[in-house]
Amino acid sequence: MQAALNGSGMDDGGEQMITSVTNARIKHIQLLAKKAKARREEGLFLVEGPRMFFEAPVERIERAYLSESFYGEMEDRAILDRISWELVADRVFAQAAETVHSQGVLCIMRAMGYGLSELLRKDDPLLLLLEDLQDPGNVGTIFRTAEGAGVDGIILTKNCVDIYNPKTIRSTMGSVYRMPFVCLGDGDLSPVLDCLRERGVDTCAAHLQGNCVYDREDYTGGTMFLIGNEGNGLSDGLSASADKKVRIPMEGCLESLNAGVAAAVLMYEAYRQRRRARER
Amino acid sequence: MQAALNGSGMDDGGEQMITSVTNARIKHIQLLAKKAKARREEGLFLVEGPRMFFEAPVERIERAYLSESFYGEMEDRAILDRISWELVADRVFAQAAETVHSQGVLCIMRAMGYGLSELLRKDDPLLLLLEDLQDPGNVGTIFRTAEGAGVDGIILTKNCVDIYNPKTIRSTMGSVYRMPFVCLGDGDLSPVLDCLRERGVDTCAAHLQGNCVYDREDYTGGTMFLIGNEGNGLSDGLSASADKKVRIPMEGCLESLNAGVAAAVLMYEAYRQRRRARER
Repeated sequence: MQAALNGSGMDDGGEQMITSVTNARIKHIQLLAKKAKARREEGLFLVEGPRMFFEAPVERIERAYLSESFYGEMEDRAILDRISWELVADRVFAQAAETVHSQGVLCIMRAMGYGLSELLRKDDPLLLLLEDLQDPGNVGTIFRTAEGAGVDGIILTKNCVDIYNPKTIRSTMGSVYRMPFVCLGDGDLSPVLDCLRERGVDTCAAHLQGNCVYDREDYTGGTMFLIGNEGNGLSDGLSASADKKVRIPMEGCLESLNAGVAAAVLMYEAYRQRRRARER
Repeated sequence: MQAALNGSGMDDGGEQMITSVTNARIKHIQLLAKKAKARREEGLFLVEGPRMFFEAPVERIERAYLSESFYGEMEDRAILDRISWELVADRVFAQAAETVHSQGVLCIMRAMGYGLSELLRKDDPLLLLLEDLQDPGNVGTIFRTAEGAGVDGIILTKNCVDIYNPKTIRSTMGSVYRMPFVCLGDGDLSPVLDCLRERGVDTCAAHLQGNCVYDREDYTGGTMFLIGNEGNGLSDGLSASADKKVRIPMEGCLESLNAGVAAAVLMYEAYRQRRRARER
């Protein structure tokens, strides 16, 4: 029965596809889409859409769900031999994916599991620490920008929005598969900062009252930018612990930049300096 | 009757407040929140929340609507002497603002009306042209970043999302009041580009296949960055018309950066160069 429902059973015509929205697997998908607690407890998350499907590391795919139409239009089905997957009737898929943006395909994935050492594989790493960021789109976009800027890893404090929130995942545009990250638990921050300090990583707080202008500092050595919450900025404690506080100048009457934009400006300045240093 | 309903009649106790969701003014608010066509035809738009209320240029406020609670908690009511306003019962306000994020106050504003000349008031202006951007949050964030980076004005092509979309307005965090912008109509693009060229403004297309690296070009003279649609990038026609195509380098397997992030990286590089030039 299991075999008939999954990938290896589909070759003979697909008559075992999921045809009911009350199917337990469909319920499970909806649960993983909506509940961070379920994702955390099961160590699973959901990705949606063709890009996230085709870019997914196959060893992390727990199970893929393909609508009939998506399956019918797939030109290269080689990936299906390597993963566990199921067909879903179009109308069931549309209902199951009502709150998501799946374009006919979604996958349940096993959560990534990085340790701090994986963020520190290179000398002079470029890192980000996100403190209590709440906007899923912001966090996802920061992952995407970080990949572009050659960032080596991202640390998220305990009160950040769930990285496995479907909107965050979508905004990463696949970077979540490739960017090492660590989600801190209670009491983890202080030992992590100590460890980074021992490794010679300079911590640079993005701060509206920073005493250094961001583009006057050198980021070619090990560097970690600290990015604060959208509404409140960095906590006083974390700011005070930083090696320096860098300020992004602003014209006009603006109170602050968007957190994702501030992170982008800092990361791309570091990347610019690092490219220049490599050329020398 | 009119006087009793508006600001000047409120001092004697506010018994004329709006107490029904079927009130014509409440219907009008909801229409302006939802329909770009209505906003365009009436030349009005809606702003929500205390920040957008207190930062609003008073001469553009058509009418403000304050919930009882917001009015009750207002410490400084001086602004109310200078504008037309009405009280709204809390429960009506909550329902009227169901799709919006108003925190007890919203305003109907008269649309801004800039001409190209207002974007060209300074020598060597720094400008942005947004082609067919569709995400309201992206456009709003670009306005906000542009203010920070000292941009002198923004040009939006005809198929951009409505700048007066409530989500766009919200994402500007007030910059929409301060950043001059022009929304192009049919056939406007070509004469506008000609006019900018005559004024010596260099047009720099943000392009994945650009032949110049963005941080190797000089943006201290008149510069306009061309930013393309989120999914498709710049159109071939607009790219071809640009004086240069600049590329933002990317590590990893990324297809592109988020349009708002790409715009931010370019604007802040231009701003960095301009600050340096001023210091010299």
